[in-house]
Amino acid sequence: MTHVSSRLAMLLTAVLATGAVHAATALDIQPGGSFRNTDNKNLNDTSEGTYPVPYKKPTAADITGALDRVRGYVDSITPTRIVDKATGKPVTDLKKPIAGAVFEPSSNDFGLMVYEMGVIHSGLIKAAEVTGDKRYTDMTRRHFQFFKDSKPYFRAQEDQFKLGRANSFTRFLQPMSLDDSGSMCAALVRARFAKIGPDLKDMIDTCSGYVQKQQYRLADGTFARKRPQASSLWADDMYMGIPALAEMGHLTGDKAWFDDAASNVLTMAEHLYNQQNGLFTHGWNANNPDAPRFYWARANGWAVLAMSDLLDVLPKDHPSYNKVLAQLRASLHGIAETQSGTGLWHQMLDRNDSYLETSATAIFVYVFAHAINEGWISPTTYGSIAQAGWVGLSTRINAKGQVEGTCVGTTFASDHIYYYNRPTSVDAMHGYGPVLLAGAEMLRMLKNPEIDIQHKLRTYHYVPREHGKAISDH
Amino acid sequence: MTHVSSRLAMLLTAVLATGAVHAATALDIQPGGSFRNTDNKNLNDTSEGTYPVPYKKPTAADITGALDRVRGYVDSITPTRIVDKATGKPVTDLKKPIAGAVFEPSSNDFGLMVYEMGVIHSGLIKAAEVTGDKRYTDMTRRHFQFFKDSKPYFRAQEDQFKLGRANSFTRFLQPMSLDDSGSMCAALVRARFAKIGPDLKDMIDTCSGYVQKQQYRLADGTFARKRPQASSLWADDMYMGIPALAEMGHLTGDKAWFDDAASNVLTMAEHLYNQQNGLFTHGWNANNPDAPRFYWARANGWAVLAMSDLLDVLPKDHPSYNKVLAQLRASLHGIAETQSGTGLWHQMLDRNDSYLETSATAIFVYVFAHAINEGWISPTTYGSIAQAGWVGLSTRINAKGQVEGTCVGTTFASDHIYYYNRPTSVDAMHGYGPVLLAGAEMLRMLKNPEIDIQHKLRTYHYVPREHGKAISDH
Amino acid sequence: MTHVSSRLAMLLTAVLATGAVHAATALDIQPGGSFRNTDNKNLNDTSEGTYPVPYKKPTAADITGALDRVRGYVDSITPTRIVDKATGKPVTDLKKPIAGAVFEPSSNDFGLMVYEMGVIHSGLIKAAEVTGDKRYTDMTRRHFQFFKDSKPYFRAQEDQFKLGRANSFTRFLQPMSLDDSGSMCAALVRARFAKIGPDLKDMIDTCSGYVQKQQYRLADGTFARKRPQASSLWADDMYMGIPALAEMGHLTGDKAWFDDAASNVLTMAEHLYNQQNGLFTHGWNANNPDAPRFYWARANGWAVLAMSDLLDVLPKDHPSYNKVLAQLRASLHGIAETQSGTGLWHQMLDRNDSYLETSATAIFVYVFAHAINEGWISPTTYGSIAQAGWVGLSTRINAKGQVEGTCVGTTFASDHIYYYNRPTSVDAMHGYGPVLLAGAEMLRMLKNPEIDIQHKLRTYHYVPREHGKAISDH
Repeated sequence: MTHVSSRLAMLLTAVLATGAVHAATALDIQPGGSFRNTDNKNLNDTSEGTYPVPYKKPTAADITGALDRVRGYVDSITPTRIVDKATGKPVTDLKKPIAGAVFEPSSNDFGLMVYEMGVIHSGLIKAAEVTGDKRYTDMTRRHFQFFKDSKPYFRAQEDQFKLGRANSFTRFLQPMSLDDSGSMCAALVRARFAKIGPDLKDMIDTCSGYVQKQQYRLADGTFARKRPQASSLWADDMYMGIPALAEMGHLTGDKAWFDDAASNVLTMAEHLYNQQNGLFTHGWNANNPDAPRFYWARANGWAVLAMSDLLDVLPKDHPSYNKVLAQLRASLHGIAETQSGTGLWHQMLDRNDSYLETSATAIFVYVFAHAINEGWISPTTYGSIAQAGWVGLSTRINAKGQVEGTCVGTTFASDHIYYYNRPTSVDAMHGYGPVLLAGAEMLRMLKNPEIDIQHKLRTYHYVPREHGKAISDH
Repeated sequence: MTHVSSRLAMLLTAVLATGAVHAATALDIQPGGSFRNTDNKNLNDTSEGTYPVPYKKPTAADITGALDRVRGYVDSITPTRIVDKATGKPVTDLKKPIAGAVFEPSSNDFGLMVYEMGVIHSGLIKAAEVTGDKRYTDMTRRHFQFFKDSKPYFRAQEDQFKLGRANSFTRFLQPMSLDDSGSMCAALVRARFAKIGPDLKDMIDTCSGYVQKQQYRLADGTFARKRPQASSLWADDMYMGIPALAEMGHLTGDKAWFDDAASNVLTMAEHLYNQQNGLFTHGWNANNPDAPRFYWARANGWAVLAMSDLLDVLPKDHPSYNKVLAQLRASLHGIAETQSGTGLWHQMLDRNDSYLETSATAIFVYVFAHAINEGWISPTTYGSIAQAGWVGLSTRINAKGQVEGTCVGTTFASDHIYYYNRPTSVDAMHGYGPVLLAGAEMLRMLKNPEIDIQHKLRTYHYVPREHGKAISDH
Repeated sequence: MTHVSSRLAMLLTAVLATGAVHAATALDIQPGGSFRNTDNKNLNDTSEGTYPVPYKKPTAADITGALDRVRGYVDSITPTRIVDKATGKPVTDLKKPIAGAVFEPSSNDFGLMVYEMGVIHSGLIKAAEVTGDKRYTDMTRRHFQFFKDSKPYFRAQEDQFKLGRANSFTRFLQPMSLDDSGSMCAALVRARFAKIGPDLKDMIDTCSGYVQKQQYRLADGTFARKRPQASSLWADDMYMGIPALAEMGHLTGDKAWFDDAASNVLTMAEHLYNQQNGLFTHGWNANNPDAPRFYWARANGWAVLAMSDLLDVLPKDHPSYNKVLAQLRASLHGIAETQSGTGLWHQMLDRNDSYLETSATAIFVYVFAHAINEGWISPTTYGSIAQAGWVGLSTRINAKGQVEGTCVGTTFASDHIYYYNRPTSVDAMHGYGPVLLAGAEMLRMLKNPEIDIQHKLRTYHYVPREHGKAISDH
């Protein structure tokens, strides 16, 4: 006990003295944490406190290190081999399919074709583009070549054994949902533009065809699901559908894809976006349109990521361009106002007693930084929001390259016990792609020649160089 | 120390290392608790976390057990005898009143005629109705028979000794407030309809007469008090007055009672209901109409319970029926949006750093479940809210049948120190009636043939059977 | 361990048993603390809980004691001598300036001419006025006499050595900001009215001239700064500029000063005040008008203090009088609704997970009490808010007269990590003047013959004597 801090000692003394422990009250909230801001070289500066996260301007080396670790980790747990499910041994005879052949399972259940992996590929492509380091897309190339090579085998397996959802390749043989199609579809098109991996036009046709023509929709074309109720909208589906449509417009030049994508942004927002607090509710049911709202963070992430991805390729003269941009700006405003004092965002954006969630934070960091780099939003207003987000996020990327604190897969539910208590796991793939995207775009922002990042008076100002005036001392 | 968890060890190590203890920050918030969802039989399901409360579909046995314990406890602490206050000995000579004769005191100060006991009788009547188990109303019968038997004695005592408020029967000899009259009045009428206990028409006349004709009101008929200011409205008075009026309309068929009841719902809401957040402020003072608001949970409970009780008996063709229903729906929407991640509601509905309060939670559970069972609100939207509320509430009903965590009697105050720090007690009667109501209505919902309660994807969906589609796996 | 409370023991047992420590959840929030309300003499009153702060009606002796300690502390750490910076020795030859001569440094860096000291002098003047105890202004007299005596020396030093900002007297030789001028200017004029200290008309001319004519402004006259962006408004500048203008109107009778002051209240509010939540955001940038908002508590304090100071001297027939009063009332309404359950306010008014901040609380207590005493707002509505604020504040004034828990100097930043983690310090001067103001005005309210402060039903009611009716027992 001799080394115990005086504060703990005081606390214990208080406990012993009063015979009662009162739970934490507002009086116990104190500023600070275990980090100093290393950008402030004055160790005696009494106007500088401590922080619960490493509040400082991130360096390119910090970020690149994090990206490398994440890349290495994901690469290491995603084998690309066909194995016999029963024995685990490689299947070598690719001529004659067997019923038990499957993609070799990932130790961490990281599926090669799931929507989360689509985000990872998009993140790797972005990281390669920003850093010029082609090692980022080695994994993408490896996975996509494996798709190319193994598709005939699983096609034949399907024809012969009719495995349906049990077929490892099922999402590209017979897609059944936006989750099966849209995210990976967008990644495939991006890889095609970046000339990464083999020609996968057939797979692009399959997934884009599903998104465009087979997905259940409302009468006005809004992506919908038949669950949990007869006709339900999910904010998640903005990401599961819109980027695929957008990239297909980009690839084909056919305006119809863009029209569909933009229309979905606007009709989804009409049903899900709350103009009062600037947030998206997780979902909406046609039969019960005025239900209590659940501002689940990741759903908001998917919504803004979808808008951002669309704006990346939507022609500026598209009739809905300005509306989509306005919706993105409004959404980012609402999200910024809910950022916690750690830079991370809460699982439920409007509830500061819900846990701080990693995947949503990562998506937000990406979209803020990207929107700044693209000139959609002001660096002065949002640069420090993005930086604070990264600062918080950086504490969630561990030495192994695992992303901690990500909420596992979550359905559109109707009570807060469910949402508050979704477990987090390093095996929740949802965090990995967003972290890659966030890091890449933060690097781009750090190098952005139009922004002067100033550390003045113990905080940060992202000043556009054209208007940039040095901040006077105070 | 060898058994201490690694997390505590880490924490202690951190304390020793840094020499500083920082108070809990947002970073410390973690999902989960000590309960597993026993509806999920897969013990290895990594997508299922733990919960701070027993998140699961309650069974009829769980609920009936809780109801039985509460009934037994209340029964055991409410003697119905006349005793000599000085000696505690029974008064046996009922012919010649003595000044010191009183209702035998309850060990826990559970008054036989207070408004909280009125709610308990209404809860017992409901429990008997739902379960068909007449033991629930044994206590009601015993109390009411005691009223019948002892009234002449206390009437004579009053005539002779002029004890005023010190007379145990004072509330029905000379009622002086809605608290004295309305809640018990509604219970008496309900017992009359259910043919429980003796004929107490004289008592019904006394209390209903007070509510209708003697209570101080605003010029427009709204129930008011002369405290804390010259003319004040209390949301509590919606329950203290409206159900009595409603039941009198029900009993007599005279529309004037219904008009008065409905009018009070609407004018009270006009002054107390905040359309922006969907909540009732505790009170309102005519001289200071734009004061800061105090969204005390139980006051919101009384408000919605009053509306629900009125709708139970208000003819559907009453000109205000739809307005009352709309106000109830709007209020339940606002309340649902403030439910905590434990299913319970906070003492101040808008403040998640105020404690979780039992009596308000119980009232809300009852009204949500009842409104679903009556078809006033959607099961799909609110079924899981009601269930979550019960799940939280169930942790507050102990093995003895005591209801824990109920805020004691609380006045209409003007500062948050007061409201946040109202103590809780198992002796606060306010929790007991609502728990009986909540459990009974939850039982009814579990048995409701029109609702299919589905446990899918680790959460719950209350699907109306007419539109019911199975939720597909995901 | 034998003396450890059963609750801690339970907690440790739980830890050992489950092998897991879950962070505090909502279930852990409990009412109460270590204080009883000593106004309730019934020690067995089960309807009275405990409190985290000394909830009770403060006595004049409590408050006077706190004021005396604070006065003594500030007096003791603000020497008024000229010393040689290098040696620390007094400069005795005032005829021939030396470059190294400075105001003797305060052990706690309490500057004699900084804006925070202006608030302290205004607080001392108010305390002397309310108590009739002239010792409160001894320090003001001493400081101001020192200004009178030393100005020629520092003027000559400046002419000879051109020290600029390094000259101890720089703020009154060449003011460069509202921080340099406005707060001290208002204090100088107040001292002049109260006939405290020497004639300092020349200093008043310097500072008022700066505020009126030299400060950068928007085209419409709103006080502005060129940082952090090209043209920024700071809510702080309401206090840094408006009271000086107001007091100059008071001193000269020239309406132009009042026009300027009132106009600044209204245009500042137009840009910074959020009508939805009733709060001021810390700042606003002309180039990015729709940025996320930061409801920093002290900035709200400066805003309402500026309005209150203006109304003190603004003629009632000034065309903007009613608008300024309406803005003050609206702002106080918003602030009241964010008061915590301890009476203190949070660093970020809208964030109950940010720490409780002293200086803002003190300003609010002053303005609520003052506005009640002046008849601008209702005592019944706000008296208990002011009292609760003082109750919380009283825990922050230690035995030495230091004010604890005040946020140090804080710039207009753009992320919540910064604001949440600003350190607090007893050396942050910002808390001292407001505590003096708050205590003085609370004393005035306690003695206010028009208010009957009632302790009824364990809470407080501030009843105007003209309408005052005793609150009936319940």
